[in-house]
Amino acid sequence: MRVSRLDSFIRRLEAQRACLEHAAALITDLEGCVLEFGLGNGRTYDHLRHLFPSREIFAFDRQVAAHPSCVPDAAHLFLGDFSATVPAAIRRLLGTAALAHFDIGSGDVAATAALAATLAAAAPPLLARGGVILADQPMAAHAWAPLPLPPGVPEGRYFLYRVR
Amino acid sequence: MRVSRLDSFIRRLEAQRACLEHAAALITDLEGCVLEFGLGNGRTYDHLRHLFPSREIFAFDRQVAAHPSCVPDAAHLFLGDFSATVPAAIRRLLGTAALAHFDIGSGDVAATAALAATLAAAAPPLLARGGVILADQPMAAHAWAPLPLPPGVPEGRYFLYRVR
Repeated sequence: MRVSRLDSFIRRLEAQRACLEHAAALITDLEGCVLEFGLGNGRTYDHLRHLFPSREIFAFDRQVAAHPSCVPDAAHLFLGDFSATVPAAIRRLLGTAALAHFDIGSGDVAATAALAATLAAAAPPLLARGGVILADQPMAAHAWAPLPLPPGVPEGRYFLYRVR
Repeated sequence: MRVSRLDSFIRRLEAQRACLEHAAALITDLEGCVLEFGLGNGRTYDHLRHLFPSREIFAFDRQVAAHPSCVPDAAHLFLGDFSATVPAAIRRLLGTAALAHFDIGSGDVAATAALAATLAAAAPPLLARGGVILADQPMAAHAWAPLPLPPGVPEGRYFLYRVR
């Protein structure tokens, strides 16, 4: 029997949580901040705050749609089009991110692929050497080598990389 | 440590699924249709279709916001304000529903409580004797006796009743 949309939604969220926790374990020994691309409703941002109580976390989005308790303060929020906010972030955070999480998929397949390509081209200077990238889309950045997903997460559901 | 919003969202969805499956088991020996109040994005409606492949399922909502694959045909959709659609449904389905699922909570606590009270007053004629009611809000209908939740679902997260 095909699974229901409720089943697949739960699986997707559980996989997201498993991947975030796996990525957190991968950067235990690496200093640096955490970047959340696509603040959205703020649920994964809140999870990142729990996983990284002592790291700075910066979030990027076009506009704020998150629950008020899940909105970073102004110093940790890059608001606007990624084409403007990523260069601004590079000026402040060059090479200091230990983890970047890209949660950028939308219903529009072509627009999502274009956004993933744009960010894969623009975002690499933000990452520290050895930094980890977790994405809901494939991100083909030359400097990023694919890593295996944690157990139980099916191939293609998330994408994990480490800076070479 | 307080759980993150991602954690609590996953728990809520898992509890919802567990309650739907528990409710389905409770009506195995009871003929009748299934009612979904609050179609929303259609995820639980899709889950109900999987749980009840041979029962008629009717959905109620103010407007359609669901994924196109999760919208009932016109004969199984009551669209508009509940104050109009519930009486219309009673004329067609009087006493024939084996299960009613109320997924009606919104961010507005007062409006949600008022809606739950309205539906608890209006909806009982739809249910068959021995029918089961699952709700995300307390529904104090005189004819409905509370039932225990399935294992693992904390008190107050869902509300389960059976027609006396």
